[in-house]
Amino acid sequence: MTQALESFITIKSKRRTLMAFNFKEVKALFLDQFAISIDQAVLYEEAFTHSSYYNEHRSEFDKYNERIEFLGDAVLELVVSEYLFAHYPQLSEGELSRMRALIVREESLAQFCQDCHFNQYVRLGTGEEASGGRQRPALLCDLFEAVIGALYLDLGKDAIIHFMNQTIYPKIKRGAFDQLVDAKTALQEELQKSGRVQISYQLVGEEGPAHNRRFKVAVQVNGQTIGQGQGRTKKLAEQAAASQALQALQV
Amino acid sequence: MTQALESFITIKSKRRTLMAFNFKEVKALFLDQFAISIDQAVLYEEAFTHSSYYNEHRSEFDKYNERIEFLGDAVLELVVSEYLFAHYPQLSEGELSRMRALIVREESLAQFCQDCHFNQYVRLGTGEEASGGRQRPALLCDLFEAVIGALYLDLGKDAIIHFMNQTIYPKIKRGAFDQLVDAKTALQEELQKSGRVQISYQLVGEEGPAHNRRFKVAVQVNGQTIGQGQGRTKKLAEQAAASQALQALQV
Repeated sequence: MTQALESFITIKSKRRTLMAFNFKEVKALFLDQFAISIDQAVLYEEAFTHSSYYNEHRSEFDKYNERIEFLGDAVLELVVSEYLFAHYPQLSEGELSRMRALIVREESLAQFCQDCHFNQYVRLGTGEEASGGRQRPALLCDLFEAVIGALYLDLGKDAIIHFMNQTIYPKIKRGAFDQLVDAKTALQEELQKSGRVQISYQLVGEEGPAHNRRFKVAVQVNGQTIGQGQGRTKKLAEQAAASQALQALQV
Repeated sequence: MTQALESFITIKSKRRTLMAFNFKEVKALFLDQFAISIDQAVLYEEAFTHSSYYNEHRSEFDKYNERIEFLGDAVLELVVSEYLFAHYPQLSEGELSRMRALIVREESLAQFCQDCHFNQYVRLGTGEEASGGRQRPALLCDLFEAVIGALYLDLGKDAIIHFMNQTIYPKIKRGAFDQLVDAKTALQEELQKSGRVQISYQLVGEEGPAHNRRFKVAVQVNGQTIGQGQGRTKKLAEQAAASQALQALQV
């Protein structure tokens, strides 16, 4: 075999490996599920390639989804912020921030990723696959953000809004992220890990006219203040205080 | 005086107070400095009103800049991310994130706010004004984000990009945020507060082909690892390790 022929075959076989990402199926998924006609295959190939796959095939190509996830993360942050800003005029900046944090946290995005079936198409390395990576929340969350990044680069913000209108926005509208109960419950669970503790919430201040009252609450553990928060109601202020305490605890 | 006339005068005087925000001057500022013709006065009135001013005039109107700052923060995060993603194809996700953090941190945004003279037009409460609020970095940073939020709601993303092209993007291009020296220096300063410490950086791994090598570095204090990082060069990996250690220290 001549050297030229040999390298031709090598190139051919490399091409085959590169085709392992099935753009046609992903295109069909977007069309069927969301009526979105995605276009630039190379962007989705990047988004649907995990670093573990790249590590096993790095001589063949040089892209995996971490950079595009960096972009998708910011896109998602903006479109969620815009929705909350427009639809919750009564919420303060602190309340909006907490609600946004609930929506874009790993657990929520991993669930959206599964709901959209994106994880069926991600390319993983052998080890990652064997250890259940295809169901791992952190990986799913990153994948979801990466796909958002690809969609944004491919079709722009209008397509993102169209996608959000069929996925995340209806869930926000249904109130899935309204109950800020998480912070108080989470704090209790977190503190009880280290033994029996006495958690109490103290009203430490209130101001403003009746129609626009602000409450300040401190959360105490065994008498010591570990967080403070504000809100339109005592309940919201307690949640804010618990949330701040949680942030301080989660180093 | 009839009651009708009395309440007419009250309304008139309230109107005058509300006009204290000089939209005409802010409009001229945008036109002269950035060739941007801003339109919806009510958005800028909100952006240029600090909560301290609101607290002193809350019977008259109900808007101050914290909510619009929430939105502006996300807008800024996206347009900075897009720029970095497009212009630094060689940087990893971690490196992009660190560079973005340098650009959108309080110190940088406060400086941009002063460069744009926005703080000359913000409405502050008497106490905030007296205590030098008009030069306070946290206040300037929030104001800058709020103005970005107003500009985005008023004229959309194209106007933001136009604004960025005359303010932040040229500064990024000139390399103002390239030197990641901050992390190592900052870590040293932070640790030395608590006495004499021995900081060292250890190369703990390297992988990949010569043209795409990745280095892993651990930063140790008195022999104990307090952070790890990766990068294309040992220097970048050290910066990443220092940055991670700093994050872990800043509870």
